[in-house]
Amino acid sequence: QKIGKDTFGKGIFNSVAKDSTWSMKFGLRMQYLTSVGLDADANNNFDFDPKNLQTDTKVRRYRLKFDGFVLSPKVKYKIELGMSNNDTGSSNEYTKLGPKLILDAVLKWNFYKNLEIWAGQTKLPGNRERVISSANMQLVDRSILNREFTLDRDMGFQLRNHHTIGKQFLIREVFAITQGEGRNITTGNVGGQQYTSRIEFLPYGTFTSKGDYKGGDLKREPKPKLSVGLTYNHNDRASRQRGSQGSIIELIDDSGSPEDHVFATTDVNTSFVDFMYKHNGYSMMGEFAYRNADDTTIGTNPVKVGKGYNLTAGYLFHNNYEITTRYSQVDYKGIANTKEQYTVGVSKYIVGHALKIQTDLSYTTVDGASDGLQYRLQFEVHF
Amino acid sequence: QKIGKDTFGKGIFNSVAKDSTWSMKFGLRMQYLTSVGLDADANNNFDFDPKNLQTDTKVRRYRLKFDGFVLSPKVKYKIELGMSNNDTGSSNEYTKLGPKLILDAVLKWNFYKNLEIWAGQTKLPGNRERVISSANMQLVDRSILNREFTLDRDMGFQLRNHHTIGKQFLIREVFAITQGEGRNITTGNVGGQQYTSRIEFLPYGTFTSKGDYKGGDLKREPKPKLSVGLTYNHNDRASRQRGSQGSIIELIDDSGSPEDHVFATTDVNTSFVDFMYKHNGYSMMGEFAYRNADDTTIGTNPVKVGKGYNLTAGYLFHNNYEITTRYSQVDYKGIANTKEQYTVGVSKYIVGHALKIQTDLSYTTVDGASDGLQYRLQFEVHF
Amino acid sequence: QKIGKDTFGKGIFNSVAKDSTWSMKFGLRMQYLTSVGLDADANNNFDFDPKNLQTDTKVRRYRLKFDGFVLSPKVKYKIELGMSNNDTGSSNEYTKLGPKLILDAVLKWNFYKNLEIWAGQTKLPGNRERVISSANMQLVDRSILNREFTLDRDMGFQLRNHHTIGKQFLIREVFAITQGEGRNITTGNVGGQQYTSRIEFLPYGTFTSKGDYKGGDLKREPKPKLSVGLTYNHNDRASRQRGSQGSIIELIDDSGSPEDHVFATTDVNTSFVDFMYKHNGYSMMGEFAYRNADDTTIGTNPVKVGKGYNLTAGYLFHNNYEITTRYSQVDYKGIANTKEQYTVGVSKYIVGHALKIQTDLSYTTVDGASDGLQYRLQFEVHF
Repeated sequence: QKIGKDTFGKGIFNSVAKDSTWSMKFGLRMQYLTSVGLDADANNNFDFDPKNLQTDTKVRRYRLKFDGFVLSPKVKYKIELGMSNNDTGSSNEYTKLGPKLILDAVLKWNFYKNLEIWAGQTKLPGNRERVISSANMQLVDRSILNREFTLDRDMGFQLRNHHTIGKQFLIREVFAITQGEGRNITTGNVGGQQYTSRIEFLPYGTFTSKGDYKGGDLKREPKPKLSVGLTYNHNDRASRQRGSQGSIIELIDDSGSPEDHVFATTDVNTSFVDFMYKHNGYSMMGEFAYRNADDTTIGTNPVKVGKGYNLTAGYLFHNNYEITTRYSQVDYKGIANTKEQYTVGVSKYIVGHALKIQTDLSYTTVDGASDGLQYRLQFEVHF
Repeated sequence: QKIGKDTFGKGIFNSVAKDSTWSMKFGLRMQYLTSVGLDADANNNFDFDPKNLQTDTKVRRYRLKFDGFVLSPKVKYKIELGMSNNDTGSSNEYTKLGPKLILDAVLKWNFYKNLEIWAGQTKLPGNRERVISSANMQLVDRSILNREFTLDRDMGFQLRNHHTIGKQFLIREVFAITQGEGRNITTGNVGGQQYTSRIEFLPYGTFTSKGDYKGGDLKREPKPKLSVGLTYNHNDRASRQRGSQGSIIELIDDSGSPEDHVFATTDVNTSFVDFMYKHNGYSMMGEFAYRNADDTTIGTNPVKVGKGYNLTAGYLFHNNYEITTRYSQVDYKGIANTKEQYTVGVSKYIVGHALKIQTDLSYTTVDGASDGLQYRLQFEVHF
Repeated sequence: QKIGKDTFGKGIFNSVAKDSTWSMKFGLRMQYLTSVGLDADANNNFDFDPKNLQTDTKVRRYRLKFDGFVLSPKVKYKIELGMSNNDTGSSNEYTKLGPKLILDAVLKWNFYKNLEIWAGQTKLPGNRERVISSANMQLVDRSILNREFTLDRDMGFQLRNHHTIGKQFLIREVFAITQGEGRNITTGNVGGQQYTSRIEFLPYGTFTSKGDYKGGDLKREPKPKLSVGLTYNHNDRASRQRGSQGSIIELIDDSGSPEDHVFATTDVNTSFVDFMYKHNGYSMMGEFAYRNADDTTIGTNPVKVGKGYNLTAGYLFHNNYEITTRYSQVDYKGIANTKEQYTVGVSKYIVGHALKIQTDLSYTTVDGASDGLQYRLQFEVHF
């Protein structure tokens, strides 16, 4: 006996209670990545001797997904578990030395009109590139802006609303109160919470198939679509180098040595402005990030303050090949070097984002001098 | 095509071999916990300044469950995997630095009349509160008695029997021989085995729906039901501070330093008396625990000997709200402080234990002085 | 509603897209092991005092399996996840301190005639005993040859072909280029790749049900069947004690101390000759392994060079009991001691390899003197 599902990306099976009190869809997704890198030498030149190439092949992401509703279609849940070593992240004393298997574990209750409350662990309403699922990216992976500024996931609560002005001008508002320490933290929740607000403007209405949070214009929007988003995040007494992410900041005692597991904290603010535009196969996404902190000198790993840019543009041909380019920059205001990255990629969407092959080439500079080249090839399948 | 199941807690799908040689039910369960704590200050007073509050939100438990039979309905198996950082526990050198994903992995063979042999890893027949699934608790979590005295899980064998005297007086006997080191141990199985015996008396017969091992009288027993249990456990040459649980006891050499990974061992005995009473929405559960050891001074982390009490009482209203109170005490006979805890909780059982919201408030004293307050809110769903 | 499957070992459910673009079979397998060991004393005698026995019970293997095709039956995938502490191996800094949950994650594309390309992580075409699934073993576990010489799993690419000469003489060729560091490595992919070639000769054609890669002649081959395989593996600038496996080799500085995380590398070559013979319930498997290296003195954990033998023979009675014997030897050419092991085992195949009970007894010598005795009892079920 077979359990049939429509096509890729729609789940492996659906289970529904006879009394319609719950549903569950089970899906699975995997990403294989091969990359070849070359670092510039001391004179910022590239020596293409094969011995200098760093090759790397891995299961980049491997996810089990469960979603559905409980009691009423108005109460939805979403669970995503990561199984690869890249998914489970680096376990440490703050995760009970256990792997961070749980990515998402969130309940969403639409309790009144367009108002939804979310509870649990999931992505914060931060920069657009981060909120776009790693399954739906236009290039092999996210940008250096995201790596340095993302708010990523956190545990807590989100309140979400949306309303339409006039015929189609859509506005979305999100407000989140969360722990401020990132995902899967069991101890070491020091300092205060973090507070995240986001507002989005979609003057021409919703994108087809939630395309404002998917890479590339795979639906070839017949009319121009635009979304502009603004996020402001305040992490009260944060104790990590990038707010809720990165290395722990430990206090330095009078003799100049770090005090083990004694956290230094300071308030950290992160802001984003981003947009997505799509029309007729063309897509463009841009992001600006800015982080500051009350005290940028405190502790062993002071907060990294600075700003970042990211601009991505792509065109999808009618044969479902896409060419995409990206420029991104991270400027740490003298604290660290300024990094720029130029990327060009080609994707073949066999069954949309659910089955695709992607490849890209990146050139990175540090303070304007050549730093590295990287070629990547990725295969994604999503059941 | 849909796979229908009756309601919550009955599994997500059932799979049965066409030739009826096996069956498998797959279930999934999750628990979200938010807690707010306040420690007393040096003068044992509570200062309710928000800055002193410790908040904590986490996926407390996230479990995948597989059970069914092989070859014959007389040979059953049960597997439970934990996915949250709290489930997988703290990995260490004795677990190959790997996470303790496997909670239960046990085969149960009913080989003759009422005789069953169990093989594998599962809970020992220890204190009642521990054996009650964390899915079926009356309060947000188990008591301090359980934390200090539980026998928890172990690998090995259990022999189980039951018989009825007269019309309804049920007696159950269990005898277990297990490794004595707790779950998921791959190396460091030092000392001898542990031996656990338990006998239970149910003078008025079985509870409805196995209610002697479920918190609260959700079935509103029309007639009074009682179960009294006695457990005696002997851990031969144990090497952990609480028998099979807790920190490793390392030998101390002549100079007074611990010898790394050289285990000190001593025989440890743990006894329990416990009962469960239910009638018409009222429930009462009590436990007494006692531990002693041959040598309570040996090694780096000597065995914690002492006793504990726990008394829980609840009433389930007809709207499926329950009020529960608990008093528990741990008395370490001068080795450590005496801890007492008073808890009051409210539960709303939406679909029994399979979908519920629970909240409780605990006040803890140490040697009679105020020590801490804790408020907890938990959501449980069980597919 | 029930999802029926034929019998053991055929999967728990099958899911197929309505448009036939993909399929997925989900299976699950578990192995419980109890072993009792006795080390010889200083005079190489065995003292059977119960206090000297080391007992050990564990979930030896616990696996979730997903396999099927994508887009076309010519593009197959196979995923196997390990859940027990023995499966996930010892996490370390090169696995992001995360557990090695992923065993297999591989795509197999039959792109032309008999040519297949494999991409991802899976077993290398090394010694036969290793490639035989741990589900299909004749004895409780693999030999000491395998423990010391196996190429195990790796990430990368394999090209596979086979052709028939005359009526039935089958030849298989495999060539693999892989990372050379073993499975689930996220950092520390130092040195070059590893290259593995294997050729197999099956002069009497294919075995029934792929029996050349299954322990024991469970199919009672009516005519004699033989497979002979030769493998040559070259690990370019390897940095582990057994090529892609074992401890990291760290550089030793001038003062004689190891330099933390600075890898010493040397080329390592491993060769195998092996065969499988089956007829009428009789089976015989033999292996010879040989490893050498450019520099066997470099670094903290020099490469272990030497050779190994392994000869296994079994007979399956008509009641599906099998008696198996094995002799294996590892000779480290003076670098380490020579180890020999004699094993005799009895298996009862209830439903072939998918449901069986196995037991064996091993006697080990080191440089000819008694070293250890080990008794093992294992239960395997495969849904």
